[in-house]
Amino acid sequence: MVFDSIAAPGHEQVSYFSDPETGLRAIIAIHDTSLGPSLGGTRILDYESEDAALTDVLRLSEAMTYKAAAADLPLGGGKAVIVGDPAEVKTEDALEAYGRAVDCLGGRYITSVDINSGAEEMDIVARETDHVVGGSDGLGNPSEVTAHGVFHGIRSCAEHVYGTDSSGDLDVVVQGLGKVGYLLAEELLEHGASVTISDVNRDAIDELTAVHDVDVVAPDSVYEQPCDVFAPCAIGGVVNDETIDQLECDIVAGSANNVLAERRHADELAARDILYAPDYVINAGGLITVGKEHLGGTYDEAYAEAEAIGDRLGEMIDRAETDDCTVLDAADAYAQERIDASETVTPALPSN
Amino acid sequence: MVFDSIAAPGHEQVSYFSDPETGLRAIIAIHDTSLGPSLGGTRILDYESEDAALTDVLRLSEAMTYKAAAADLPLGGGKAVIVGDPAEVKTEDALEAYGRAVDCLGGRYITSVDINSGAEEMDIVARETDHVVGGSDGLGNPSEVTAHGVFHGIRSCAEHVYGTDSSGDLDVVVQGLGKVGYLLAEELLEHGASVTISDVNRDAIDELTAVHDVDVVAPDSVYEQPCDVFAPCAIGGVVNDETIDQLECDIVAGSANNVLAERRHADELAARDILYAPDYVINAGGLITVGKEHLGGTYDEAYAEAEAIGDRLGEMIDRAETDDCTVLDAADAYAQERIDASETVTPALPSN
Repeated sequence: MVFDSIAAPGHEQVSYFSDPETGLRAIIAIHDTSLGPSLGGTRILDYESEDAALTDVLRLSEAMTYKAAAADLPLGGGKAVIVGDPAEVKTEDALEAYGRAVDCLGGRYITSVDINSGAEEMDIVARETDHVVGGSDGLGNPSEVTAHGVFHGIRSCAEHVYGTDSSGDLDVVVQGLGKVGYLLAEELLEHGASVTISDVNRDAIDELTAVHDVDVVAPDSVYEQPCDVFAPCAIGGVVNDETIDQLECDIVAGSANNVLAERRHADELAARDILYAPDYVINAGGLITVGKEHLGGTYDEAYAEAEAIGDRLGEMIDRAETDDCTVLDAADAYAQERIDASETVTPALPSN
Repeated sequence: MVFDSIAAPGHEQVSYFSDPETGLRAIIAIHDTSLGPSLGGTRILDYESEDAALTDVLRLSEAMTYKAAAADLPLGGGKAVIVGDPAEVKTEDALEAYGRAVDCLGGRYITSVDINSGAEEMDIVARETDHVVGGSDGLGNPSEVTAHGVFHGIRSCAEHVYGTDSSGDLDVVVQGLGKVGYLLAEELLEHGASVTISDVNRDAIDELTAVHDVDVVAPDSVYEQPCDVFAPCAIGGVVNDETIDQLECDIVAGSANNVLAERRHADELAARDILYAPDYVINAGGLITVGKEHLGGTYDEAYAEAEAIGDRLGEMIDRAETDDCTVLDAADAYAQERIDASETVTPALPSN
């Protein structure tokens, strides 16, 4: 049931859009607009059930609220799902109908790219609404900004664990050489760090090793590789019951989403004296970029602002020590306080 | 599941609004905006389940589409439900939050009065949105317009059955002396009809009999009372398996909603040679009034326009003869054609 699902997380509005002519079926969830219009991508997936789609869009939109709040952005949290096999449902007509659906929300929700939706899809959506970012005329791929933010996050963690600006002496294992992982490895190397890489894709490894002096570790051995920082930049759930005891690092900090298999793994990392940089805080560069596009600004400005991720993370780490909690708890509290402070002037549903 | 429920009737948008601070839980269903913004009341009820609330709001909003289309109004169909015990959920704060929810839809849905929501509630809603009609500064109670429309509908039916303007010779049984039934009885009497009334409330009967020469029939005997026109102006479902064989009339035409217990009763009335004026066509005076308020106009204009209900009903009766179908089928077809004609220029979800 929808109300029961949205009561506890406090979603403001969940809208179902159906367009029989084009076959569009979309759910747009607006979690919280206390800090500004909700922003989040449109995920296009063939969910096994409508319930699964609802659960996903509710979870993701709520996460966007905290991500934006923890990034000091004047944005709320929202997310959308288009339900169906991407090969079938991504027609121009359906995406245009989806654009009209987004437009119906009058700017309370701003959409962007996500799984199975990229700049091409956003361009079609943009024919029908202004409330979209991430199209081909946007600020472009945010990977550089994301990598730059993660780099500053790692630097902040290292400063905390090893002392003032120790990034030059760091030994970092980068798991996954996708766009962000690749750029992160390069930025770490530029600053003198030792980098060990791992990827299931041999081509990416060859590309990096051709121009840089890095070590390579097999994907199965990546967790047990001794290092200062383990930087997960690929799939989620890599810190789990199986891997957590293999980790030979002091810091876990990377660009991957949902690094922890479960929330309790944050406590378990802390118990092992491993500093965990909450994924949604450290990987906010992408959101900073699309937020910048929405708010008006340049890619270079977004790039520069991603450095502040390090400062905020530092603040959260300090707070975790003071409050004797995990950094994840401290990050959530930081975000919640921003939201609550704003709610004293803005009711949950926006005033006109 | 929401999508499965809205797929066949073709609802454009169904939005769930939740405001934990005020306890507001509302569903706003926009069925079709091909002909204009959706208009429909806000029903406040303690539904036994969320599913029951969804089913109700979907059914009611769809009905509003056909009602507006059959009344030649430039309006679409929508409806809202606020879920909960009216005594608990009708707080000022919650109604203000509801007003903001309505406002979020940017004018695609215009709300109004319904069960447990009146002018007082609409005044509170109006603090937060312009998309509301039926408040205390509105055109006022539409009962006169509704009664006037029903009168012209009855006249049109009689013309068809008995020949040109026979309303002066009619024998009409009015079931229910609520505001509309009372005014209808008076208008019929003014035009020389013989009127028999029935009500469970003795006061209403006494009031009318004090000033008019009418017959009175006991509520249980109302269906078997021989007459030309049986005019149900109270509860719904009065034409059912039990009553249908008791009817001693040529015409069933009144202001009540959902006169037929089931749709098949329209066929069964036709089989008995009883002309049935579809409820949603003949009782559209209320919608014409709030529509007039939204579109800009006076109560007198709405009153005058209610006369056209007779003409449209006449057209539908003719069409039913030509197409050999019930008047209900002909009314639905009339409405659907208006919607379809509009959809050739307006996609199901509105363009910007």
